[in-house]
Amino acid sequence: MIFSSKLIEDAVQEFSKLPGIGKKTALRMVLHLLKQQPHEVTHFTEALARMRQEVRFCNECHNVSDSEICTLCANPGRNRAQVCVVENIRDVIAIESTQQYNGLYHVLGGILSPLDGIGPEQLEIASLVQRVKDKQISELIMALSPTIEGDTTVYYISRQLKETPVEITTIARGIAFGGELEYADEMTLARSIAKRLPIENYVNTK
Amino acid sequence: MIFSSKLIEDAVQEFSKLPGIGKKTALRMVLHLLKQQPHEVTHFTEALARMRQEVRFCNECHNVSDSEICTLCANPGRNRAQVCVVENIRDVIAIESTQQYNGLYHVLGGILSPLDGIGPEQLEIASLVQRVKDKQISELIMALSPTIEGDTTVYYISRQLKETPVEITTIARGIAFGGELEYADEMTLARSIAKRLPIENYVNTK
Ligand SMILES: [Zn+2]
Ligand SMILES: [Zn+2]
Repeated sequence: MIFSSKLIEDAVQEFSKLPGIGKKTALRMVLHLLKQQPHEVTHFTEALARMRQEVRFCNECHNVSDSEICTLCANPGRNRAQVCVVENIRDVIAIESTQQYNGLYHVLGGILSPLDGIGPEQLEIASLVQRVKDKQISELIMALSPTIEGDTTVYYISRQLKETPVEITTIARGIAFGGELEYADEMTLARSIAKRLPIENYVNTK
Repeated sequence: MIFSSKLIEDAVQEFSKLPGIGKKTALRMVLHLLKQQPHEVTHFTEALARMRQEVRFCNECHNVSDSEICTLCANPGRNRAQVCVVENIRDVIAIESTQQYNGLYHVLGGILSPLDGIGPEQLEIASLVQRVKDKQISELIMALSPTIEGDTTVYYISRQLKETPVEITTIARGIAFGGELEYADEMTLARSIAKRLPIENYVNTK
């Protein structure tokens, strides 16, 4: 693509670095912004800049947060004995959006995947084990993707906690094997959490 | 979607105002930016802000420009007697990308569409007629979308210039009827310009 404006070219270039955005789509976005009022574009760019500069990760659950402890962990109305273990922030948003879960979360930051060089040290597993021991957590709900890596991660964590009095459950297999949690519709996801199983069950029925 | 971070929520909200971007895609973009280095996100937001604040429209051809006269109009190597009339900026980029055209442009800002309230006054038609008369332009290449509105616009402009000694041609109909110019591949577009026809021809063969 040849542009007669360096300003447009730079903006298109930057946009096309986003995932799934090709040059033509990037140009469409840029020309859309060009048609907006300047203050609207300022709102857009400032919201992104502020997000990147100010967002932190909760010290407790590693979810994104606007302060040291996220609003979920800080909420006294939530069940502090129940922790739902997820891979990433998107999963927290997906589960919260069902409005069916009232416990806390623990964001691992991924799942075990030796082929990709992701071992326990790359994930928030040690902090999870510590948290379970320190915070009188009675139930861990494993809400990981139903893949081999997800299963391996569930198994690894359950081994780390086998001397600790915590019930480990997994969300019901309403989600297709190999499916990604975040793409599940809210109904399926809500039902999977409601119908969660003790881990022994889950391992046996495989 | 329920977010535990207002910063993330605002950024997703802003992203989802872009054309064709739903909430899930917006979240994906935001989480992608969250993984980038802060200076990379700054590059992104600053390129967009600068583009919106500093881009202007060329006084001569109404194309986007970084200065009062765009680089195309300012280029002494281009054929100043030939002007290609297009609907919008995307068309200029599409034609320039073929690297087969060496004349100037005139960006109308749309095509005549009475149903949408777009008449000659809403477009850069008067300035085109004036430009042809003032600047010794010998050929106008009409590169408008091959639709009824495009044809009407070609006809309207040719009527305005019927006393003026300028040859009016249209790009060859390599582009499917009803197709949008900007989606044509470069080869088709380049050939359409090379095989352009005098306007009489075009009206007769319909
Ligand atoms: Zn938290
Ligand atoms: Zn120009």
